[in-house]
Amino acid sequence: MNIAQLAPPFEAIPPVGYGGTERVVHTLTEELIRRGHNVTLFASGDSRTSARLIPTCEQALWRQEPPYGDFAPLLSVTVGKALRELDNFDVVHSHLDHQGFALTRQTSTPVVSTLHGRLDLPEHEPLYREFDDVPLVSISQAQRTPVAWANFVATVYHGIDLDRFTFNPVPQGYLAYLGRVSPEKGLDTAIRVARRAGRKLRVSARMPLPFRSDPGVRADWEYWENVVQPLLGSDVEIVGQLGGAEKDAFLRDASALLFPIRWPEPFGLVMVEAMACGTPVVGCRGQGIEEIVQSGTNGFLVEQCDVRGLTEVLSRLLRRPDLRQQIAVQAHRTVHQHLTIRKQAENLSRIYTECAP
Amino acid sequence: MNIAQLAPPFEAIPPVGYGGTERVVHTLTEELIRRGHNVTLFASGDSRTSARLIPTCEQALWRQEPPYGDFAPLLSVTVGKALRELDNFDVVHSHLDHQGFALTRQTSTPVVSTLHGRLDLPEHEPLYREFDDVPLVSISQAQRTPVAWANFVATVYHGIDLDRFTFNPVPQGYLAYLGRVSPEKGLDTAIRVARRAGRKLRVSARMPLPFRSDPGVRADWEYWENVVQPLLGSDVEIVGQLGGAEKDAFLRDASALLFPIRWPEPFGLVMVEAMACGTPVVGCRGQGIEEIVQSGTNGFLVEQCDVRGLTEVLSRLLRRPDLRQQIAVQAHRTVHQHLTIRKQAENLSRIYTECAP
Repeated sequence: MNIAQLAPPFEAIPPVGYGGTERVVHTLTEELIRRGHNVTLFASGDSRTSARLIPTCEQALWRQEPPYGDFAPLLSVTVGKALRELDNFDVVHSHLDHQGFALTRQTSTPVVSTLHGRLDLPEHEPLYREFDDVPLVSISQAQRTPVAWANFVATVYHGIDLDRFTFNPVPQGYLAYLGRVSPEKGLDTAIRVARRAGRKLRVSARMPLPFRSDPGVRADWEYWENVVQPLLGSDVEIVGQLGGAEKDAFLRDASALLFPIRWPEPFGLVMVEAMACGTPVVGCRGQGIEEIVQSGTNGFLVEQCDVRGLTEVLSRLLRRPDLRQQIAVQAHRTVHQHLTIRKQAENLSRIYTECAP
Repeated sequence: MNIAQLAPPFEAIPPVGYGGTERVVHTLTEELIRRGHNVTLFASGDSRTSARLIPTCEQALWRQEPPYGDFAPLLSVTVGKALRELDNFDVVHSHLDHQGFALTRQTSTPVVSTLHGRLDLPEHEPLYREFDDVPLVSISQAQRTPVAWANFVATVYHGIDLDRFTFNPVPQGYLAYLGRVSPEKGLDTAIRVARRAGRKLRVSARMPLPFRSDPGVRADWEYWENVVQPLLGSDVEIVGQLGGAEKDAFLRDASALLFPIRWPEPFGLVMVEAMACGTPVVGCRGQGIEEIVQSGTNGFLVEQCDVRGLTEVLSRLLRRPDLRQQIAVQAHRTVHQHLTIRKQAENLSRIYTECAP
């Protein structure tokens, strides 16, 4: 099939460091090409891809100097470039959220939208009421809950390329945290729990972006400065953003991945990457996670903000190598069976075919 | 002709108080209907119009409870509703900025966009490079300067309904300020200048909106609290937002309108409203203003931030009733000749016809 993938222009494909959506768009694009599809990728000009690349801006927007004050016009540019070529595709797969919906009513080319974010804000209700004819793909069943009546055609879990992660049953004793520095990701909880368990915490964190005029970014900086920094000590090592072989080593050598979220995380890609390495997840319940981790079987989940509960299950896991080994095998099996890029591409190909006329 | 007007959903049509774009969309819509056109208005559901109204949301977004965290999805909803009906119109006139551009490439219905804002930000360059086929209308020649190469088809000045403003050659002695509380509008300068001239300043101001998480709104509140409030005194009277007959009286009874902007104001509608009453504008140079006010003839302009210059011309004007009378007549004549809603509708009708197939 002739398939267009529309990526947000904020980060390159694949992302240099952190970037869940961009990581998924990259892996998916490469897999679709391996499967014989003809893929055109609309993404920032510094992207690296086997697909035909249509640059939607010179470079990832966060690198832009002088910085853009507003990114929305650049999303409109992505839509504009897609509009020029719509007729060349059998199907368009948009990762642009509502910005891509305008593509859907003027053409016979089907436009499928994967929703990567949370859906529980007041503005989502009128949005999905209006676009009740746009085929939507959720990334977990739980993600749908606030707008369960919307036009979802499937849930497709993100998949990873298993070749990039190494199963390792013998960890090095440290605990791992990987994610954005943001209150909802719970780095402060990870530090507290690791300290109570008496283990070193290694943190691969993406610091907040420089755009402090953005209220979300400012809240992230305040969280870093007022909550996280006072907690730092010699038992916390910040290792920066990791990709490729470094990320594989970071995840596979950890005794556990701490994932103490405190928001409705729609999916949680890093969790799957750790599980592929056989590294147990010790985290908090919340939306997508519970569809992947069965607590006690292939990882551990407690309620959000339950620091004592996290410490207890972590300590048990660390005391009992046999338990860790057992969880590691189950975690790897879960990924192998349900969460590979192969599986994701298969599921999406079926949806593309169903939507195409 | 069958004409669609697409209004931003943030404020109702017409606006309850302050709201330049919404005021213009209202006046234009009513005039087009008077001229025999068949007009459909896409706007918030609490709008009042002689056109066929297609509600794009229940009520103006700023009234929404609980408040929306992000207004962009509601602009997409406006676009979605327009997409459903595109084929019913001979021409679509969008006031949605770049959000409306997605309407333009997959349909034969022409979409004309009036740009209501500043165009000098870094993101405007890639935006107008991409949409080089979308017909753009500027609201002053000067507004175009930063992207003069973009696809402008005309400059159309905003027009006012002269029946709503009363010429009054005998003022009551106070000075008037009408506008948003925002650093770029220069209320602090207006207070300083009025005080030096020894006159009372009456202020019809729209306070900053409650959305303090927005960086622009927060800056406006900081400006109000740190810059304006300390300047207030018994010679400054805050009268709130005015509309209709109250606004007419407020403007026509003033000795002068102070308009000390310190940003590239693309047009400045209140200036035209004051001139219609014969109230001289004493303001600062900057983009659109200079195409309307010829300093010394139908008003007075000095450089931005020149408090002394403003005070001098204002004092001269206040000392010499003959000069004020002369300026008043010229100001009214300028509006009567060039800035009526009739003129604006004539110009736009010609553009609609040129663009329609």
